[in-house]
Amino acid sequence: MSLVVQKFGGTSVANAKLIFNVANIITRAYQEGNDVVVVVSAQGDMTDELIEKANEINANASKREMDVLMASGEQISVALLAMAIERLGFPVTSLLGWQAGVMTSSTYGSAMITRIDPGRIKKELDKKNIVIVAGFQGLSQYYDVTTLGRGGSDTSAVGIAVALSADLCQIYTDVEGVYTADPRLIAKAKKLDAISYDEMLELATLGAQVLNNRSVEIAKKHNVELEVLSSFVDVPGTIVREAANVEKMLISGVAKDDKVAKISITGIPDSQGWIFRIFSKLSARDINVDTLLQTAVHGDRRDIFFTVKEDRLDDTIEALSKFCESIEGASLTYDKNVSKVSIVGAGMQTHAGVAAKMFEALFTANIDIQMIATSEIKVSVIVARELADEAVRTVHNAFFTTMD
Amino acid sequence: MSLVVQKFGGTSVANAKLIFNVANIITRAYQEGNDVVVVVSAQGDMTDELIEKANEINANASKREMDVLMASGEQISVALLAMAIERLGFPVTSLLGWQAGVMTSSTYGSAMITRIDPGRIKKELDKKNIVIVAGFQGLSQYYDVTTLGRGGSDTSAVGIAVALSADLCQIYTDVEGVYTADPRLIAKAKKLDAISYDEMLELATLGAQVLNNRSVEIAKKHNVELEVLSSFVDVPGTIVREAANVEKMLISGVAKDDKVAKISITGIPDSQGWIFRIFSKLSARDINVDTLLQTAVHGDRRDIFFTVKEDRLDDTIEALSKFCESIEGASLTYDKNVSKVSIVGAGMQTHAGVAAKMFEALFTANIDIQMIATSEIKVSVIVARELADEAVRTVHNAFFTTMD
Repeated sequence: MSLVVQKFGGTSVANAKLIFNVANIITRAYQEGNDVVVVVSAQGDMTDELIEKANEINANASKREMDVLMASGEQISVALLAMAIERLGFPVTSLLGWQAGVMTSSTYGSAMITRIDPGRIKKELDKKNIVIVAGFQGLSQYYDVTTLGRGGSDTSAVGIAVALSADLCQIYTDVEGVYTADPRLIAKAKKLDAISYDEMLELATLGAQVLNNRSVEIAKKHNVELEVLSSFVDVPGTIVREAANVEKMLISGVAKDDKVAKISITGIPDSQGWIFRIFSKLSARDINVDTLLQTAVHGDRRDIFFTVKEDRLDDTIEALSKFCESIEGASLTYDKNVSKVSIVGAGMQTHAGVAAKMFEALFTANIDIQMIATSEIKVSVIVARELADEAVRTVHNAFFTTMD
Repeated sequence: MSLVVQKFGGTSVANAKLIFNVANIITRAYQEGNDVVVVVSAQGDMTDELIEKANEINANASKREMDVLMASGEQISVALLAMAIERLGFPVTSLLGWQAGVMTSSTYGSAMITRIDPGRIKKELDKKNIVIVAGFQGLSQYYDVTTLGRGGSDTSAVGIAVALSADLCQIYTDVEGVYTADPRLIAKAKKLDAISYDEMLELATLGAQVLNNRSVEIAKKHNVELEVLSSFVDVPGTIVREAANVEKMLISGVAKDDKVAKISITGIPDSQGWIFRIFSKLSARDINVDTLLQTAVHGDRRDIFFTVKEDRLDDTIEALSKFCESIEGASLTYDKNVSKVSIVGAGMQTHAGVAAKMFEALFTANIDIQMIATSEIKVSVIVARELADEAVRTVHNAFFTTMD
């Protein structure tokens, strides 16, 4: 007998029919003799409905009250899912974040899980109940309701799996697993049987958006095996686990991220002092520099190019424009029409020429590379946004068509 | 400076405009220098929407999960009301039942408040926050969410007023106070400035439905002054307090209750044993006999008539039909087309002839009295339902037109 944590997102419980579909998946796992803990998000459009209700009243409402409002979304979905399981004739109980012992920081709207006290969950499992836990929400040390922010239900699920020493944490979603590229874009994209935590982290960061990043970090740290699989199609998904166990592929996937913007600052006096001051201004506003390319010095000046998340572009311009004006000869420009295309794979550490193969493919397809950034298991390039889909296809073809 | 508890029902917060109306009432009390604690129900149609969602999934869902679902209704309304008050620029915090220390029994769906620990509310008041508490909900000793059942928000409000030793508990509703009769029925109905707890209790029991019964009982027991007033019209309401302070009126009101059914059992052998056994069968099913009329013996037989709440009629028939069949010569019939019309007033204790005046009025109007029941401050008659409105008008005229 195993202890399984299953997580279902909002699209998987959007209506009564889908709720019964999920209830069937859950009760099948229970019937197979497993202890089953389920983490569930708010129903499909519920989150948007609640935000709309709030905006009608106060578009600048405090995050504390927004969290109270938003947490009602999962409260509704856990109750409905429990009712469906009752109707199928299985013992079940729902638990809200505070009942499930999900303790968080007090950063309303984007709280971090600080501790999970699984006492109540264990008590319900001992009673042979299926346990349905409200994802995305927790309790601060001041006994206030908090929410974990975007993708928080994944984090709830993995956190609970860690706290319970679960054998497996299944993340049910609307795709069948992790692919070598976005299957909506690349028809030949191949589903991976397994992938390492590090590769999954790079893919998540790079816009693959299958799993929330923090949830993968927690799983890696505590060595919890994850499975990403579909709640609509009954086939095995992709296992995420330590690299040692993962079949070695040269690269595991091609990812694209459209939500980046490129900043160019040219004509900076060639002194490290300026560079430092630029990045101090960004970190003061909590802006993370994403891809960084610092070009060589020309004359007594240097240029610097970097990318930030697109939704932080305005902040970035605000943080730097005055400063750049104050530097004689410097100039600040930006470009929103860029995308980041990346290849990820633990295999590239031991195979020379992976980056070269990528660049060659892009060159042959006449796609201009504006910036390049590399890590041990990743190569990213910045290209014009209108060429990004073509870039993904080109790179995917270069690495995967020969493998079929 | 006073401590005021204000309660607003679902119709008072049904949409954004109404929420701001309520927010203005609250912040005015705060600006006048009061500590303000607000108890609020779920928005207008929210309760029905949630029940519909549940019925789509499981019409026989457990009461535990129904309570989790229903409690989300007040969670939404407290957050929205707090956001409106934030927008008006006042310090505010919302609290759910479990945060507000509302401890209840474990009878899901109709839990009783066992204790209120006002620690958190007091802490928020000390910080000069307006405190918005979710009505209708609490926490069982097993740390489960419970709801208090119909009218529960009134009980929450009065309970919190008691726990805080509040100076006044204002129950805001869609009528301007307690009237001598239903103002929709009797144009001349007069709003009462004050009424005693006992009279209010009789009126609530008798179908006036202005205040939840249990809330009045708690207020009486702990001597908390209530005020029933309108959230739509800014005029003083009706004060509910100990009789000693209440202006003496002969009767304080005429009430009608359509939700009754009359049971007749005729031909019972004249032995107290049978009567006892009939009422044992009813109490075994928790059926309360409402109005009781036990007619005189005729021959060696007696007839018994009583009323029960209409929604318990089926239960009552089920409890008694077999038993009555087993009594040689007895017969059981029922009548749903009856109403109870009552006059209530502490004044009648010291004024003879009040009942006589009522009966005379009904006789003059040709309205047949089927049953009569009296208490120290109440006279009720059972009449045919189609004559009930006319009966209320007739009785109201008899007592109140001469007073103008």
